[in-house]
Amino acid sequence: MKRSFASDNNAPIAPEILAAILEANHGDAVGYGRDEWTQRAIGRFREHFGERTDVYFAFNGTGANVVALSCVTKPWEAVLCPLTAHLQTDECGAFERFTGSKVIPIPTRDGKLRIADLEPYLHAGHDEHHPQPRVISISQSTEYGDVYEPDEVRELCAFAHARGLYVHVDGARISNAAAALGTTPRALTVDLGVDILTFGGTKNGLMFGEAICFFDPTLAANVAPFARKQGMQLASKMRYVAAQFEALLTEDRWLRYASHANAMAARLLERIRTIEGVRITRNARCNAIFATMDRAAIARAQERVFFYTFDEALPEVRWMTHWATTEDDIDDFVLAVKESLAT
Amino acid sequence: MKRSFASDNNAPIAPEILAAILEANHGDAVGYGRDEWTQRAIGRFREHFGERTDVYFAFNGTGANVVALSCVTKPWEAVLCPLTAHLQTDECGAFERFTGSKVIPIPTRDGKLRIADLEPYLHAGHDEHHPQPRVISISQSTEYGDVYEPDEVRELCAFAHARGLYVHVDGARISNAAAALGTTPRALTVDLGVDILTFGGTKNGLMFGEAICFFDPTLAANVAPFARKQGMQLASKMRYVAAQFEALLTEDRWLRYASHANAMAARLLERIRTIEGVRITRNARCNAIFATMDRAAIARAQERVFFYTFDEALPEVRWMTHWATTEDDIDDFVLAVKESLAT
Amino acid sequence: MKRSFASDNNAPIAPEILAAILEANHGDAVGYGRDEWTQRAIGRFREHFGERTDVYFAFNGTGANVVALSCVTKPWEAVLCPLTAHLQTDECGAFERFTGSKVIPIPTRDGKLRIADLEPYLHAGHDEHHPQPRVISISQSTEYGDVYEPDEVRELCAFAHARGLYVHVDGARISNAAAALGTTPRALTVDLGVDILTFGGTKNGLMFGEAICFFDPTLAANVAPFARKQGMQLASKMRYVAAQFEALLTEDRWLRYASHANAMAARLLERIRTIEGVRITRNARCNAIFATMDRAAIARAQERVFFYTFDEALPEVRWMTHWATTEDDIDDFVLAVKESLAT
Amino acid sequence: MKRSFASDNNAPIAPEILAAILEANHGDAVGYGRDEWTQRAIGRFREHFGERTDVYFAFNGTGANVVALSCVTKPWEAVLCPLTAHLQTDECGAFERFTGSKVIPIPTRDGKLRIADLEPYLHAGHDEHHPQPRVISISQSTEYGDVYEPDEVRELCAFAHARGLYVHVDGARISNAAAALGTTPRALTVDLGVDILTFGGTKNGLMFGEAICFFDPTLAANVAPFARKQGMQLASKMRYVAAQFEALLTEDRWLRYASHANAMAARLLERIRTIEGVRITRNARCNAIFATMDRAAIARAQERVFFYTFDEALPEVRWMTHWATTEDDIDDFVLAVKESLAT
Repeated sequence: MKRSFASDNNAPIAPEILAAILEANHGDAVGYGRDEWTQRAIGRFREHFGERTDVYFAFNGTGANVVALSCVTKPWEAVLCPLTAHLQTDECGAFERFTGSKVIPIPTRDGKLRIADLEPYLHAGHDEHHPQPRVISISQSTEYGDVYEPDEVRELCAFAHARGLYVHVDGARISNAAAALGTTPRALTVDLGVDILTFGGTKNGLMFGEAICFFDPTLAANVAPFARKQGMQLASKMRYVAAQFEALLTEDRWLRYASHANAMAARLLERIRTIEGVRITRNARCNAIFATMDRAAIARAQERVFFYTFDEALPEVRWMTHWATTEDDIDDFVLAVKESLAT
Repeated sequence: MKRSFASDNNAPIAPEILAAILEANHGDAVGYGRDEWTQRAIGRFREHFGERTDVYFAFNGTGANVVALSCVTKPWEAVLCPLTAHLQTDECGAFERFTGSKVIPIPTRDGKLRIADLEPYLHAGHDEHHPQPRVISISQSTEYGDVYEPDEVRELCAFAHARGLYVHVDGARISNAAAALGTTPRALTVDLGVDILTFGGTKNGLMFGEAICFFDPTLAANVAPFARKQGMQLASKMRYVAAQFEALLTEDRWLRYASHANAMAARLLERIRTIEGVRITRNARCNAIFATMDRAAIARAQERVFFYTFDEALPEVRWMTHWATTEDDIDDFVLAVKESLAT
Repeated sequence: MKRSFASDNNAPIAPEILAAILEANHGDAVGYGRDEWTQRAIGRFREHFGERTDVYFAFNGTGANVVALSCVTKPWEAVLCPLTAHLQTDECGAFERFTGSKVIPIPTRDGKLRIADLEPYLHAGHDEHHPQPRVISISQSTEYGDVYEPDEVRELCAFAHARGLYVHVDGARISNAAAALGTTPRALTVDLGVDILTFGGTKNGLMFGEAICFFDPTLAANVAPFARKQGMQLASKMRYVAAQFEALLTEDRWLRYASHANAMAARLLERIRTIEGVRITRNARCNAIFATMDRAAIARAQERVFFYTFDEALPEVRWMTHWATTEDDIDDFVLAVKESLAT
Repeated sequence: MKRSFASDNNAPIAPEILAAILEANHGDAVGYGRDEWTQRAIGRFREHFGERTDVYFAFNGTGANVVALSCVTKPWEAVLCPLTAHLQTDECGAFERFTGSKVIPIPTRDGKLRIADLEPYLHAGHDEHHPQPRVISISQSTEYGDVYEPDEVRELCAFAHARGLYVHVDGARISNAAAALGTTPRALTVDLGVDILTFGGTKNGLMFGEAICFFDPTLAANVAPFARKQGMQLASKMRYVAAQFEALLTEDRWLRYASHANAMAARLLERIRTIEGVRITRNARCNAIFATMDRAAIARAQERVFFYTFDEALPEVRWMTHWATTEDDIDDFVLAVKESLAT
């Protein structure tokens, strides 16, 4: 398959990550996380996010989000998130099925949740007739490739905490957000008051693997191990997940991969925004570009390159880059789009 | 307690219903619906709704809605309903907890779901990443005391069926809607293509009891008995639920009670709409009036009569009437409101 | 229908209970338990069980058991009960469906759970691979009409508490047990260390209604209202459940009804145990007699009187009495059995 | 870590499997199984099990069992399995949590379920009060390292099908069973009537990965994709799971790894059974040996080699071998046990 622009999960494993898997493959190791790789990887997370960070590896993004949120919600407590959140639109109701709780989707202007959006959803009664809001969940970067500024997250956290709510960040692409903002995942989460982060690996160079981080170790210590097991996210050969994360969090690889993906998207944006017939639809700052063009041109381009139509109605397409996308890939892709429009 | 204007569930049991309970209280009866009262009550439903009607009694409205919908949704199938639906706002996520399925709340102009509102929610992919729409649920009368016209329901049904979806009517107040429209519950449901109705008893003179009606007997025959039992809605002494419904569906009592409640609301509307300081906020045609007035006046009125502030933001209040509300009650209430405003 | 010997839930409503319903039927009342009847009924429970008793009314026995147990179990925590418990055999998995938790059924000699039966089930690991025992649930009287002696319950409670477990009593027939032992429901529960009781009404003269009693008000105060609502057990016209319980707990009616039921069973036992062809199979001390007789004779008897074959294998039948069973009923029944055997 | 005798999931990745991962790591690939590796791996399964086989990869054993069983059980339908089944004892109630259904654990003599064990559990009523048996689940090899003979499975299947039940095989170690019996996984499953198999990879040389096989493609085609997604078992970078299975099912590697593991266990058994102080407790024919010895000797041995005490009561230990266990490992282990006993 030629380079895909469909999703960062179409990418291969980054070489340093693969090397870490190979290196972990010596001799026997105790299962279920009681191995040295897991201990070291957790240590790396604590270096990055602080010593109080409680870390649980999971298989995939849906698993990580659902297990993380399940730890802090009772069945009558609800998660508030943007209408466009992955949790709401792309996880097939896994959260509802696992917890019985309600996700309350909130319309937003651009995929970013703001206090004014949230407020009307907090007026429902506090009695037993109504699901009780418990967590605010946002995606950083957003589903539209944009980022929350640190101040925006800080305000959401203050707003949430004042009402007894937790803040969860779906960080499938937290590294891309940090790269875009020239900062660190820590500076975008725990330092701003975020309570729970699902830190993405799969979309940033790993074979598979996500990490649930609770920034207060008392939050889920007695709960998360059971929730992860019941959520079918407990890997027996945990060393192979852990070794990948250890490698990712070493020598700033998380940043290198994400920065590269972002830079490729920036290159794409720069070259494609001026093409007649292409209209950029979103303020994308990470590794995704959203655009609209003629429906027939989209079809022609999709014959040459694999990417998704994100919203059939407009139509709006999404083009994603990743750690392995090259400048030549971008240039080939731009050419393909141009020719599709020209025909 | 003086007359309440808070809800039709504040009403006592209507005398003919109570008489039916007394009459049922002779000797022993087999439990769980294998008794003669249940058979007769089911027969009454079939007289009203057609011979193919499959009927299951439940304890309360939440139970009836949840059991009914659970019979036709797999855990990855979703129910589409207005954002204001009782199912979404007032059942504390009971549906999600019982089924693991998702409710997809749809914003509407006035609490009535229209095809244009629905369409954007049917564009999501048909693959495993997205909850699959399965049922459209509407309330008749609506949560705002309005009614769907027969044509509106017919169109929704045609739209739904063309897409393989079912239509469910939350009929906690279906009798009030039928009374308002001068027609029958049948003419508002099965005759228009509705697949499932939860027919309300509690709010129309019963002590307790709702009836789930499947209009296609193959829809849930192997499912509903188990769903009702697991939903903890199976009464052992079923005769006492059944006897009430038998009485309600006899001699048009359902209509008499509902018409009276509607008439009292109409009287209230007529007298109160012209009071300075009261603004009617909804197009109410059944037994609920929505209005706004000065916050302090609301508080003063609530000291004299029990009713709810429905939406604190506006603020909007709801005034409900029921089978036992009298003309004097209305006149007293209007006076109370007037004096609250005057002070 | 002639007198049934199938179940105490085949009985009609006792006259004093019905009178209480009639008396409650005046004027309007706030819904969902914020009425004076509910407050008085809760007061009666506190008189009987102590001031710290936290009471929640539910519609039926399955609902009461499931809501009660759900309040103290996380989804990975298990309820241990006899293999023969109603919770395990007759509630269609409602507990598992509502909570996702596991019921661990324990074989017993005679339906009574003893410490020696329990012990092997407490050796499983305390890690995330295994459901963690959280509650021991017993039925008083047992499913076989026998009773636990106070000392047996006290020992179970001490055993449970020493291991951080709660003790729940399914008291659908707690009144029969208290009557049989010449004591009170309190002396059989809170005074022995029981943490949670579901106090039965339906099988002891009520139209419907069960009461969940938490004996430590901190146990479920923030949980039970939501669990009851999500469990679809919250009656809107609560006064009619409450009024029944108020009546039942007044002038020792609970005891009178249960004593009468027990006395009728004792009379039946005395007359039937000496009939050739009838073998009593269980040590029944309350209102149920278990026996075996010739399969053809059972069939003939069932043509004349309604009762259940409890276990087809043996075959074993169950004969139950209730508050309304008369001496004549017993004598007629004994005659029917005799004649069925003689044919 | 020295060689572990705790579990076959303590093993590293087999070299041919790792090579397949490396080979898959070129360029981009569409996510979620729409890639060429997945298609080829499914093809391999069809070569092995027949063209009608419907295959879904999952992350781990709990996930594979739960998703597989969820596809054929409604929430009121139950799975019957041995009391000792992994599903019952080691999956932390994940099945109950995901489905709301009941697992009915059946005591057996030796971990093998026989028709005589099953029969009493099929007499419960067919009405809504009782969970309805729907699937019989057995483990091949068993949790005690023994195997079902083909005739035993054939009889179970005939018994099940005659009652409308499905048969599921938890085949976490199906390869070890096939190796022990000198046959193929196919000859132990679809050819005998088995309906569903979870085919184990993790314990037979893979990094991670299990495969759910439905042998009738109509059984779950519309259900399994959604169940897997909701069960959080859908890998985005599916090629890396698929490539491993493709390699495992090529050149009889599944057999080579499993045969080696079994042979190492046989060598261990031969050398250890005659040691004074060791008593073999189970008829083990695959890669697990169960034994009892002095509690102090166990503790001493565990200081030198990592293995689990399976049952603290006896005490009974489990010693497992795997594809990477060597003859020297066995000899060292035997020495360690001997010296532990001698001290």
